[in-house]
Amino acid sequence: MTVAFKDWVKACQQRVEKAAENNLPQEALIPQKLHSAMRYSVIGGGKRVRPLLVYAVGQIYDADPENLDLTALAVECVHSYSLIHDDLPCMDNDILRHGKPTTHAAFGEAVAMLAGDALQPEAFLFLVRTKLPAEQRIKLVELLAYASSTRGMCGGQAIDLSVVGNQKMTIEELRLMHSMKTGALLKASVLLGAFAGKKTPSQHDLSQLEVYGNAIGLAFQIVDDILDVVGDTAELGKTAGKDALGDKPTYVSLLGLEKAKELAEEQYLIAAKAVEGLSEDLDGKERLIEIADFIIRRTH
Amino acid sequence: MTVAFKDWVKACQQRVEKAAENNLPQEALIPQKLHSAMRYSVIGGGKRVRPLLVYAVGQIYDADPENLDLTALAVECVHSYSLIHDDLPCMDNDILRHGKPTTHAAFGEAVAMLAGDALQPEAFLFLVRTKLPAEQRIKLVELLAYASSTRGMCGGQAIDLSVVGNQKMTIEELRLMHSMKTGALLKASVLLGAFAGKKTPSQHDLSQLEVYGNAIGLAFQIVDDILDVVGDTAELGKTAGKDALGDKPTYVSLLGLEKAKELAEEQYLIAAKAVEGLSEDLDGKERLIEIADFIIRRTH
Repeated sequence: MTVAFKDWVKACQQRVEKAAENNLPQEALIPQKLHSAMRYSVIGGGKRVRPLLVYAVGQIYDADPENLDLTALAVECVHSYSLIHDDLPCMDNDILRHGKPTTHAAFGEAVAMLAGDALQPEAFLFLVRTKLPAEQRIKLVELLAYASSTRGMCGGQAIDLSVVGNQKMTIEELRLMHSMKTGALLKASVLLGAFAGKKTPSQHDLSQLEVYGNAIGLAFQIVDDILDVVGDTAELGKTAGKDALGDKPTYVSLLGLEKAKELAEEQYLIAAKAVEGLSEDLDGKERLIEIADFIIRRTH
Repeated sequence: MTVAFKDWVKACQQRVEKAAENNLPQEALIPQKLHSAMRYSVIGGGKRVRPLLVYAVGQIYDADPENLDLTALAVECVHSYSLIHDDLPCMDNDILRHGKPTTHAAFGEAVAMLAGDALQPEAFLFLVRTKLPAEQRIKLVELLAYASSTRGMCGGQAIDLSVVGNQKMTIEELRLMHSMKTGALLKASVLLGAFAGKKTPSQHDLSQLEVYGNAIGLAFQIVDDILDVVGDTAELGKTAGKDALGDKPTYVSLLGLEKAKELAEEQYLIAAKAVEGLSEDLDGKERLIEIADFIIRRTH
């Protein structure tokens, strides 16, 4: 019997939470404050969308749960580090994240920067520690490093920096920026799951998974922009209306609310079709559709 | 005929320089400013001590030069990222490094932080790209990640942060801090060279190399502290007298100048003895003695 999506999500969230608690350096270890800041930033926060993708795809490719725990935690560490650094005064200068003070608000700027810095090697160490053949582990390292690089997350962040106050961005430029800033790590999560398993994904399946990853990555950002306009701060756990206030170009500012909603829905259909195109003999594919639905129809 | 040390150093420096020029993302690629900042920070700076260690040990273990180029560049990227972040206003707030403006002085704080962030995954991608069996590549990733983590460089940096203005540090505490902050990456450079070769290092040799790495790591920092007192800004390429001014505990402040010089000399002897203890059949070991000499007798 298949577990209901809501329960499956909860189980995954609990697994990654436990993996973080057990595998991140303990607070009792020197330097304590740095370890506290790292744990504060990773444990107890967020929807864990990237881990959900790792678990869902990993289960399709028959991965050991312990390997998925470490892989999901690795992605989440990279995601967390990016949030810590994004929130710093020299970047977005935000003090609220996941409904609690941002890391620098709680630990000071210097420790927050170091916590972000230190989460990167920690993430790669988690991948190294998976019990997988070396060939697979090096593939995981490559996927995560590439997605975090200037061709992925850091690159998108740099483009974002350069366009504040410049509403003249085209929709194609906005799309490129987000495909790097947010999309790259979401897509990497999908592929990490595929490469962490005992079954080897076919080239055809990898292409389908890339299409899926791109579509949900795009949808994720559009929905984020929509929620920034229609959501409220308490439910979001971060400051609502911030992008609009900062004169940042968004899907809503460029397309309008209705068109943005349509574009998100379109991505849902593309994602669903990509999943249907995966090899027939694979089990558990419906989770990917459910995640797409979860991402696109969420309210926070 | 053996190449003179000075010429060998120059050749290694040129190799890593060329590797950086060829392998770091080109400035013409989007996001240009971020790529410029990364290249500015890595290319054309420093003594390249870590690359020298990678090349010297790698040559002993019969490594392909191209694999050493990528490995040396990877370590140098991590070292460079740490300098960029250390120089930021929320850390040491320095504006001069290697005789030129620090990265944030030249590119602004946000871009500098991102350049540091982006050099980390780039370093791991360089290791992934070495033409070595996956088992060896994953070992390289593990060594570099561990040395950069809270049990290495980031941890030492966090301890350093917590002791500014606190002269009550003991010599053992100072030693622990530096063994993490600077020593870990120097030791890792030694071991990376050993694991990048076609010859497999024996357990005995790895132990000897660790002793060597620890000794030169310690000596490196002692000499740095000595130069901060006796050197001048122009020759150092960074602000002299800064540590003493900042009330930071140093080997000189804790031991006095003469005792500090003795301790450095002691480390040279330990390093030399460790090298002599390496397996008899290995060639090129004298380079390691020369590097120890270079580190300990340098004037900048």
